Order: sequence, then structure tokens, then C-alpha cells
Amino acid sequence: MNRGLSILDFIFKLLAIVGTLGSSIAMATTNETLPFVTRFVRFRAEYDDFPMFTYFVVANSIVCAYLVLSLPPSIFHILRSTAQGSRVLLIFSDTAMLVLLTAGASAAASIVYLAHKGNTKANWLSICQQFNSFCERISGSLIGSFGGVAMFIVLIPLSAVALSQR
Amino acid sequence: MNRGLSILDFIFKLLAIVGTLGSSIAMATTNETLPFVTRFVRFRAEYDDFPMFTYFVVANSIVCAYLVLSLPPSIFHILRSTAQGSRVLLIFSDTAMLVLLTAGASAAASIVYLAHKGNTKANWLSICQQFNSFCERISGSLIGSFGGVAMFIVLIPLSAVALSQR
Repeated sequence: MNRGLSILDFIFKLLAIVGTLGSSIAMATTNETLPFVTRFVRFRAEYDDFPMFTYFVVANSIVCAYLVLSLPPSIFHILRSTAQGSRVLLIFSDTAMLVLLTAGASAAASIVYLAHKGNTKANWLSICQQFNSFCERISGSLIGSFGGVAMFIVLIPLSAVALSQR
Repeated sequence: MNRGLSILDFIFKLLAIVGTLGSSIAMATTNETLPFVTRFVRFRAEYDDFPMFTYFVVANSIVCAYLVLSLPPSIFHILRSTAQGSRVLLIFSDTAMLVLLTAGASAAASIVYLAHKGNTKANWLSICQQFNSFCERISGSLIGSFGGVAMFIVLIPLSAVALSQR
């Protein structure tokens, strides 16, 4: 029973690694230069024009690195399924990483929403009418990150179930 | 040992209830009408001009209600410190609520940041120069919510430690 849970844990971690890595690469390589130029301005949007997108990339990279580093403990749990202390430690760090990832993903999501819809009351115009492919790219890069959040929501209770079984 | 952990758990939950309740009330009662009027427009900012703030209020209210409902199980854990199944269930729901609260808090925080700083690249102007007290209020109301997130980060590992001790 506990070994099965540990193997599931390992698989979910691999999926979360793919999701966060993909999100952070997709966001970090996003930019768009519009094909017209005025005398003084070249219209260009880059992901790091918005500090929330920079934070998104940083958060996803940190969580991805953490997940890679936590694969050896996961393998250890598959081999020694009665380990307790290391599981508690993993729940602790998983919870912290879940918060980091969720904060990055939802901060970026709220800016993506603004970019699409704008806000008439604050007089913030939608920039997606001009920067079309930029907007598609930043919207898409959220998916992997929210997938990673979903994996964590499963991972933490899985560890708890493994702890309760002895 | 386990009883001590359960009492700590109870105290942290009470603190998180105060934080989320305060945040949601502070945000939901925020509005400002500027003291000048043009022929057609009365300048007025309300929290629900921004969907992220509405989400913030909803998320904080849900988490606050959940925390109140989870107080009886906490008391049960203080009395019967060897309970296992109910602790696993609480870790599961706590994790879900942590994600909800973090998402609400950081989505609102990124809009608060934009309201203060604006974004020159997207041509979004800072609205805090006009709506001064509105901005102070929405900034302050984030505090309780992030405090609640911090409580959850402690709560979940506490339950895990209690599970590992038998």
C-alpha cells in the first residue's frame, strides 16, 4: 500500500516538473515586436515588462528545481516505505512550494486577464488587440503552472495518507 | 505531545479566522468618491470595479467559513489525540483552502501593485494618485489574508507531525 503511494508520488512529481518547466520556458521566451514603426517608438512587448511575469518565471523555476531535488527522497520512500521523518519534512517543504507556485500563477493570471479585458473604470486598455500572439503565449504558459498546483494538491494528502498507514 | 500540537493547531486556526474575516470585511467595505464632479461623471472607485478584488472577498469568506466549521474537529483532536482518519481529511481540505486563499491574496496583490505603480509599457496609469484612501485601504486589507496563508503553512505540517507521532 505505502509503496504504491510512493510510486504515485514519484509520477505526480515528474508531471509537475514537466508542467512548471514548460510554463517557465514558455513565459521567459515570450516577446512580440509589432510590424510597424513610428519615428521614435518601436512597439515591442516582452514578458519582463510586467514584474508579475518575471515573478512567475522565477517561482516556476524555483519549484521545478525543488521538484528535481526531491526526486531522490521520493525514490528512497519507494524503497523504504516506512520512513516517517523524511515524509514530514517533505510535507513541510511541499506546502511552502505550493504557496510559491500558486502565488506566481495567480498573480500572472490576473495580469493576463487585465491584458485581455482591460478595466474601464481604471482606464486601463486591453493590450491584446495590438499584441495578439504575445497574449496567446502568456495565456498558454499559465496552463503548466496551474497543472503543477493541481499535482501538489494531490501530492500533499498522498504523503499524509502514507504517514497515517503504518 | 500530540495534545500540545492539537492545541497549537486550534490557536493558529483562530488567528487565521481573525485574519481572513478582517481582510474580507476591510476589502468589501472599500469605496471612495472623489470630492469633485464633472457634468457627466462622478468619480467613484469601489472594490468590485476589479474582479480580482471580488474574488479576494469571496475566497477570504469561504476560507473563513471553512475554518469556523473545522474548529469542532480541532477540539475533537485535542480530546482524542490518536485520531488518524480525520487528520488526513483535514490535511486534504486544508491544502485546498490554502490554494484558494493564496490565489485570492496574490491576484489582489498584483492589482494593488498596478494601482500603485501603473505600467508604462502597457500605458496603464497609476490610479492611486487620485484614489488615495481607496489605495491605502485595499493595500491594508491584504495583510490579514497573507497572515492567514502563513498560518496555513504552519497548520499543515503540524497535522503531519501529529500523524507521524503515535
